[in-house]
Amino acid sequence: MSIPEKNQNEIMRRESEYMPPRSLSHWMIGRPLSTADAPHQTIGKAVGLAVFASDALSSTAYATQEILGVLAAAGTIAFGYVFPISIAIVVLLAIVTISYQQTIHAYPGGGGAYIVSRDNLGEIPAQMAGAALLTDYILTVAVSISAGVAQIVSAYPTLNPYRVEIAVSAVALVMLVNLRGVKESGAAFAIPTYFFIIMMFTTVGIGIFRSLSGSLGAVVDPPDLTIMHSVSGISAFLILHAFANGTTALTGVEAISNGITAFNEPRSKNAGITLIWMSVILGTLFLGISHLTGQIGAVFSEEETIISQLARTVFEGRGLLYLGTIWGTTLILIMAANTAFADFPRLGALAATDGFLPRQLTFRGSRLVYSNGIITLSIIASLLIIAFKASVTLLIPLYAIGVFLSFTLSQFGMARRWWKIGHLEEGQELIERGSTLRYDKQWKFKMLVNGFGSLCTLIVMFVFAITKFREGAWFVLILTPLLVMTFFTIHRHYYNLAQRLSLQKFDGLPTRQTRHRVILPVSSVHQGTLEALRYARLLSDDVTAVHISVDADETEKVQKKWLTWGEGTRLIILDSPYRLFVEPLLEYLEDIIEQRQANETITVVVPQFIPSKRWHNLLHMQTANVLRSELLNKHGVVVTDVPYHVHELHEEAHKE
Amino acid sequence: MSIPEKNQNEIMRRESEYMPPRSLSHWMIGRPLSTADAPHQTIGKAVGLAVFASDALSSTAYATQEILGVLAAAGTIAFGYVFPISIAIVVLLAIVTISYQQTIHAYPGGGGAYIVSRDNLGEIPAQMAGAALLTDYILTVAVSISAGVAQIVSAYPTLNPYRVEIAVSAVALVMLVNLRGVKESGAAFAIPTYFFIIMMFTTVGIGIFRSLSGSLGAVVDPPDLTIMHSVSGISAFLILHAFANGTTALTGVEAISNGITAFNEPRSKNAGITLIWMSVILGTLFLGISHLTGQIGAVFSEEETIISQLARTVFEGRGLLYLGTIWGTTLILIMAANTAFADFPRLGALAATDGFLPRQLTFRGSRLVYSNGIITLSIIASLLIIAFKASVTLLIPLYAIGVFLSFTLSQFGMARRWWKIGHLEEGQELIERGSTLRYDKQWKFKMLVNGFGSLCTLIVMFVFAITKFREGAWFVLILTPLLVMTFFTIHRHYYNLAQRLSLQKFDGLPTRQTRHRVILPVSSVHQGTLEALRYARLLSDDVTAVHISVDADETEKVQKKWLTWGEGTRLIILDSPYRLFVEPLLEYLEDIIEQRQANETITVVVPQFIPSKRWHNLLHMQTANVLRSELLNKHGVVVTDVPYHVHELHEEAHKE
Repeated sequence: MSIPEKNQNEIMRRESEYMPPRSLSHWMIGRPLSTADAPHQTIGKAVGLAVFASDALSSTAYATQEILGVLAAAGTIAFGYVFPISIAIVVLLAIVTISYQQTIHAYPGGGGAYIVSRDNLGEIPAQMAGAALLTDYILTVAVSISAGVAQIVSAYPTLNPYRVEIAVSAVALVMLVNLRGVKESGAAFAIPTYFFIIMMFTTVGIGIFRSLSGSLGAVVDPPDLTIMHSVSGISAFLILHAFANGTTALTGVEAISNGITAFNEPRSKNAGITLIWMSVILGTLFLGISHLTGQIGAVFSEEETIISQLARTVFEGRGLLYLGTIWGTTLILIMAANTAFADFPRLGALAATDGFLPRQLTFRGSRLVYSNGIITLSIIASLLIIAFKASVTLLIPLYAIGVFLSFTLSQFGMARRWWKIGHLEEGQELIERGSTLRYDKQWKFKMLVNGFGSLCTLIVMFVFAITKFREGAWFVLILTPLLVMTFFTIHRHYYNLAQRLSLQKFDGLPTRQTRHRVILPVSSVHQGTLEALRYARLLSDDVTAVHISVDADETEKVQKKWLTWGEGTRLIILDSPYRLFVEPLLEYLEDIIEQRQANETITVVVPQFIPSKRWHNLLHMQTANVLRSELLNKHGVVVTDVPYHVHELHEEAHKE
Repeated sequence: MSIPEKNQNEIMRRESEYMPPRSLSHWMIGRPLSTADAPHQTIGKAVGLAVFASDALSSTAYATQEILGVLAAAGTIAFGYVFPISIAIVVLLAIVTISYQQTIHAYPGGGGAYIVSRDNLGEIPAQMAGAALLTDYILTVAVSISAGVAQIVSAYPTLNPYRVEIAVSAVALVMLVNLRGVKESGAAFAIPTYFFIIMMFTTVGIGIFRSLSGSLGAVVDPPDLTIMHSVSGISAFLILHAFANGTTALTGVEAISNGITAFNEPRSKNAGITLIWMSVILGTLFLGISHLTGQIGAVFSEEETIISQLARTVFEGRGLLYLGTIWGTTLILIMAANTAFADFPRLGALAATDGFLPRQLTFRGSRLVYSNGIITLSIIASLLIIAFKASVTLLIPLYAIGVFLSFTLSQFGMARRWWKIGHLEEGQELIERGSTLRYDKQWKFKMLVNGFGSLCTLIVMFVFAITKFREGAWFVLILTPLLVMTFFTIHRHYYNLAQRLSLQKFDGLPTRQTRHRVILPVSSVHQGTLEALRYARLLSDDVTAVHISVDADETEKVQKKWLTWGEGTRLIILDSPYRLFVEPLLEYLEDIIEQRQANETITVVVPQFIPSKRWHNLLHMQTANVLRSELLNKHGVVVTDVPYHVHELHEEAHKE
């Protein structure tokens, strides 16, 4: 590199040859990927189902159980309500599915609740949807992993005391896999998802066949019934509460609408068909499980899941088919958690790009994934698991409110969109925030579909909030607005900052500053001090050295040495009767700043000792650091550390 | 302040008017003291006894008890050995006292083990003495406070579950008092010390009178015997072990030799007489307690101390005299801990001044005390109390090895000194390391006295190490050499540093550097960047801006804006395919440093955003900080942060 010449606006470009070195994280999460390595591939319907359905389908593993858990409080008579409640939930599922069909066709570029709300309802609803979704992704991880551990514990009861440890390890494992970057490559998703679907249909199919043929008995050796808190008799409140718990079956249904761009063309059509398949499979399995639960007299228990009781009754014992069902269920639950690991950081980065979350979330790590988001999710989910002892039943009251809030906002946004479309001229197109509105004759019908869906989910959300209020829903009801407020506070900060720093209406800095005054604190006079003095004199001719006198002997030494080595620079000695160093210096600088002229810049040059070994820092007062952090808050003062590196004598000898 | 003119070596002096503001610590430890406030007063013998005797006298509170604790393992028959063992210990006390008389007269300026070893035996023994003393000061605090709590718990058994809490609170209290600075003002010391002496002489006196008159019975309702681990029969090992425990009575005897300068003139004589008084009181009380312990059949117990059993037997119940004895004992034990709080920081500062401990220990806080040493001592002592559950019996195996090591070294140093004196010409004076050696006819006798003392304490130390090895002495035997090694490592660091930075054989820096190259990392172009650019151009005409390109869109914006605002400065764009920021910049700087010319200085100017609220830092990547800490390790590069302060818009509006 030659000496740069002063060309007008010379701009050079070159590629950094820097290649990150091998390291531990390298081994754990794989070699760094270049930005150019980002994949651009699309998938078909069968693989798409596997990729996006795990969250929705896996909820069959706990939805029935949590209905039963509420009803158990009223005694076994109440168990007859499981199936009717399940039918109501499947009807709700159908309504949401039809409503989301329209979203998928209207947003071929991906229509998550955040985007649909932002485009059609404005910033506040969008941030509400964002807060709701982020909260629920965290809960998806906590609930799914806890439910997965419950399956394992059902099959291997000796592991029961280690629930929390297993769950936290599982979160850590999924985190590592995601930091490595998941290649959404079909097989990795297809095998566990289809394995689960096959095992569950086998279980439910054989179960119903045996039930019809009369050979299906009751659960042998049922586990101890767990009653959270008993109530007397069956009330509307109890049934609504059970219904609310069951609606967790719907969590994850929105996943496909987020990921439309991943599908082959025609992507909206393919995504729509996949959504219908998914809902049909989900509805069938859920109804089947709920029906059979009643048939075999399965019991709500923290020790053994409904799935485990069902499988060992249908397959008459804990054989290979039983274990297949359990492991299939566990796997799909872990896949569901994995889905949240893809969605949370992506939504976090989207909101951060919009300036509502810290910018750090937009940073893609060495493997091209949003590492900060992944790590944040893992930590919060692990804390939840520890706090709630990996119990699905304890976590469930917090869960799904957010999902239904986002369902409601998203569908209401769609309804509003149809309303706008209905008011366009025929053939007219309106491009709004990047999405194209085009007149549609059927706008009234479509608006009704989305509007009805929105109303249904809104009602469910209220049912949720009321019936589960005392058990934990209150927390989410407080948390969501707090999060929204935080998002806006962050946004205001970024916005103001950009305004203040903007060059748009900027007339340039005031007149060029020409005087430069340099202050050099000197605690003792040695080679390091002289280096700093030389640097100070390189910056300006106006250098003042300042010595804070704490010890009279030391000060005398400094004075003597300065006469020899000070190169004629003025030295001011400040007596510090209270043996403080930083404060008197700050006070002195304060004086200088006050008397500063308009065209004057002040620089404080601090000699900083850099030891060759890190622990040596413990042997030195960190005055340079203290001074810098104090001076950073003074306007118009620049602090420069002039490092002096000292190698130990024997090290030096070693090198030569 | 006018513009400084360039006078040859102008040196100005002024007093800082900075007065520390009122604060919480102010309220807790008192107003700051000016260096000029340091007291210079001396004390007489009676007050001197009070000031220096608490450590030694207080050991009577546990020495007998710990002899009994060992003998208890062999059953009650062994109790007959308590008194003979106590006599042996008093003989040892007499030997040490006579030996230290000579030290006091030889070192009128204060002759602690560290100084005597350093002057006569060299650095390694001095540091051994230092390590031993520092360790034992910590244990003095832990043991004395634990023993004090044991007295309180004996009188108020309901407090038993809170031993550790009470002990840690007491350490915190003594710490605060010492951070405030103890005025060694007589009364504060004299009252508790003389109160203790009077109470103990009353107890022992009445006890012996009643014993002789036959009216002294056995302990009523003795507490449950505590047996740590039982052995069969009485062995020499057991008796030596009991003896070793009892020698803890000697801890603190060296205190007067450390503090000779505090006495009125003729200070050596006054100090010597005080030492004899102290030893006589200590020996008498210790023998009296040991004798009466056997008479009343006191029992070794973790629940009630020997002192408590003795006092309530002698005074026939828990009346006022009983409580006086207990509180007197508790107070003197706390005073003993307080002595360690004076000695540990003083020795720490002395060793730090010699360069064997971190310099921070020489710093005197706002109240003129060595605050860092006081805080260090409190923390370690509290941890010991927590780890050993405030049990004297568990702590005692660690204790007193260090004291006896320092006794041995100090007396051996004295013997060596007499040897040197014996080889001087008559009338000749030799000034060595600040102390004057003058021929003395009696040198042979004096050498024998100190030599014999040294030998005795050496043997006791071995007895200690062997008999208490398994119970914890092994730890001290490993710790002491480790500490000595650490001290020398620290010393080597400071020594080498001073050598490398010394100006003694320094020829001045190489030829004056005249070229100044400035590098300005630019992540985006805004008002803050322009301020940094202006500063960079103030430093030098040779400025290169560097943009690390992670995001293509962002880079394009930077390029465009640079054309408008770059003031013709060259901009280099570094493509970073792995989305890293700091590493490619470092690599680029590496290149520049390599090609640097001899007379060139390189400065990196980093724009640093300073938010108006601290939490805003969370919303920004701390690139400036990361960059600085990385660059500090590069030789010959100076890093300058140019801060840009941004107030939120509404804040600004508020101000205007």
